[in-house]
Amino acid sequence: MKANKNYQNLQDSYLFATIGQKVKAYSEANSDKKIIRMGIGDVTLPLAPAVVAAMQKAVAEMGEPETFRGYGDYYGCDFLRTAISDYYKKKDAKISHEEVFVSDGAKCDVSNILDIFATGSVALVPDPVYPVYVDTNIMAGNKIIYAPGNEENNFLPMPDEGVKCDIIYICSPNNPTGAVYNKEQLQKWVNYAIAQDAIILYDSAYEAFITDDLPTTIFQIEGAEKCAIEIGSLSKTAGFTGTRCGYAIIPSTLERDGMNLHKMWCRRQATKYNALPYIIQRGAEAAFLPEGLAQNKKNIEYYMQNAKLLSATLDELGIWYSGGKNAPYVWLKCPDGLKSWDFFDMLIEKANVVGTPGAGFGSQGEGFFRLSAFGSKENTTEAMERVKKFLK
Amino acid sequence: MKANKNYQNLQDSYLFATIGQKVKAYSEANSDKKIIRMGIGDVTLPLAPAVVAAMQKAVAEMGEPETFRGYGDYYGCDFLRTAISDYYKKKDAKISHEEVFVSDGAKCDVSNILDIFATGSVALVPDPVYPVYVDTNIMAGNKIIYAPGNEENNFLPMPDEGVKCDIIYICSPNNPTGAVYNKEQLQKWVNYAIAQDAIILYDSAYEAFITDDLPTTIFQIEGAEKCAIEIGSLSKTAGFTGTRCGYAIIPSTLERDGMNLHKMWCRRQATKYNALPYIIQRGAEAAFLPEGLAQNKKNIEYYMQNAKLLSATLDELGIWYSGGKNAPYVWLKCPDGLKSWDFFDMLIEKANVVGTPGAGFGSQGEGFFRLSAFGSKENTTEAMERVKKFLK
Repeated sequence: MKANKNYQNLQDSYLFATIGQKVKAYSEANSDKKIIRMGIGDVTLPLAPAVVAAMQKAVAEMGEPETFRGYGDYYGCDFLRTAISDYYKKKDAKISHEEVFVSDGAKCDVSNILDIFATGSVALVPDPVYPVYVDTNIMAGNKIIYAPGNEENNFLPMPDEGVKCDIIYICSPNNPTGAVYNKEQLQKWVNYAIAQDAIILYDSAYEAFITDDLPTTIFQIEGAEKCAIEIGSLSKTAGFTGTRCGYAIIPSTLERDGMNLHKMWCRRQATKYNALPYIIQRGAEAAFLPEGLAQNKKNIEYYMQNAKLLSATLDELGIWYSGGKNAPYVWLKCPDGLKSWDFFDMLIEKANVVGTPGAGFGSQGEGFFRLSAFGSKENTTEAMERVKKFLK
Repeated sequence: MKANKNYQNLQDSYLFATIGQKVKAYSEANSDKKIIRMGIGDVTLPLAPAVVAAMQKAVAEMGEPETFRGYGDYYGCDFLRTAISDYYKKKDAKISHEEVFVSDGAKCDVSNILDIFATGSVALVPDPVYPVYVDTNIMAGNKIIYAPGNEENNFLPMPDEGVKCDIIYICSPNNPTGAVYNKEQLQKWVNYAIAQDAIILYDSAYEAFITDDLPTTIFQIEGAEKCAIEIGSLSKTAGFTGTRCGYAIIPSTLERDGMNLHKMWCRRQATKYNALPYIIQRGAEAAFLPEGLAQNKKNIEYYMQNAKLLSATLDELGIWYSGGKNAPYVWLKCPDGLKSWDFFDMLIEKANVVGTPGAGFGSQGEGFFRLSAFGSKENTTEAMERVKKFLK
């Protein structure tokens, strides 16, 4: 038997595993210190009451013969596909519910979508980048090229007409940088993708954090239905990191290389997937209905108050950063030209605060650092006091 | 952009979609007739009370700040991995909990596991076969060879020393045939796999239906830790078809082609997956604890009473079949040399009973037919009365 040797091209350790080990080592050696974690982008507020109620009802249904449900539609229950397409209609993006494919998360979708592309495809990813975009392409035997983000372009790389590619990864609002593309910028990316005969994989996991007049879906951009697949998530929008729900939106007429991509994803999911649990789908539906939307909006506002505090602190310290507005991350330039991991070590030792070193997201991340706004107000406030004390 | 052209090699329509269309057409044209469905292998009994209670508790936890859970361990919560490894210890299979990887279903695992094999691998599948084993290999660009089942070998194909392969699919108890391998037969397969340097993918989705002294896991066979990956499921064991939970068991020392397959799966799941929902994991845990096990055992006994009735009816009619004992399917030889789809049409028209034509599972399935034992006792009894009436 021959193994997939592409796995030998993967970098040894996944970023957050390394951070976890360092934090564990520090806390074991300093058990008296209160470590405040602002590294991993995980939510802390519980599920919305409307979501909890919907799932309690669904669990009860599964225990009764008249309401028990077996196998679900591979692509998701109609009630949820419709709730999602209605959500998109409200954003002026005309998506049919049949273009919505429900899954157990954007991470799964953005990984598994590579199944429908040919091996050896060229993937254009931003740098810095969410590591999954890179690792999944390495596993698939694809070629990866980078669109560099930096201070000059505010970590919003733009197309280079001279660069040829097949798959374009855009995450906006961005993880890790918190940067958000405007309409004109996304229009340039769509035009470029069409000219390249490429596909944009548009990760909108953080779209619910946008309050300014910025695009919340690629399908607000003209021509996107000719070149884009959008992948959304309830992880941050509704606190579903441990509950799991995402969705892929594929225009029904999207074609490349003589193949209809919508049909290909139908086939992929019908063959390799067996739907999201009914119970979870009812919880997700509640997140898209008025009561759940309102409750989750409050949670998002809570996190964005944290982001405001992070931004204000960095402003006060005169530290350059992107994000903090319309996104739950700030991406700061390490003071005194420090390297990312050196700043990580200093921050945990001097302020007992954990963040994520930018170098873990790619070469353009060296010298930068991500802090997340998902903690409690109290911890975020205390963390910023400590950071100010340490850096002044 | 180039698409994955392997998708063009897939057969046009998935078997159950075709059955669904025919049944829909018949029932629309005959709305007065009561159609009894014994085709799709979906459970009908609701979830066990212990499972429901566990999930209610978990849903409530997710609504409170002190007990809310975010991202879970990619490989599953310790409590569930341990519950599963304890279940295996009871079968005399020494599996460490670290060798257990929790997922949202055996279908997902048996599909995604191909990620760790090289493209162009040779997959040996039984014929007739669960269509997913074939389709996933076509999608991956692998080569498929068949081990034919037939009346003579009781639909239990044995290794052919002259046949070279990389991946061996064994499903026992079998879907669709209900046939079950004994210990000696599985030992031959393990010996063959080791000699071939191949990997057995052992699908044990129906092991909980075994009551006779037959293997309930490949890891009861000597040498299996050198060549086998087992994929289990709660779909039929605990009625989780709409709730979703499966697991892959990969021995920690399993190596091929200089690569450790356990490590590869760790990497694949850490990169492309984000764990089963916490709520569902608590439900699954309850299914492996004494109360849940006892409740599910009753459900399995209920289904097996149906299977007994199916068997008795076929015995009375003098129709050859496999399964019906230790498995929730019977696989019958169509009377009068009828072809599978012709028997399907006759059965729905003359008896208003739906089954699954054997031809849908492969060329060796032609002339055979699957009936499932997952319906209600009342429907199964009525269906068998109608079948007897029609066939006498």
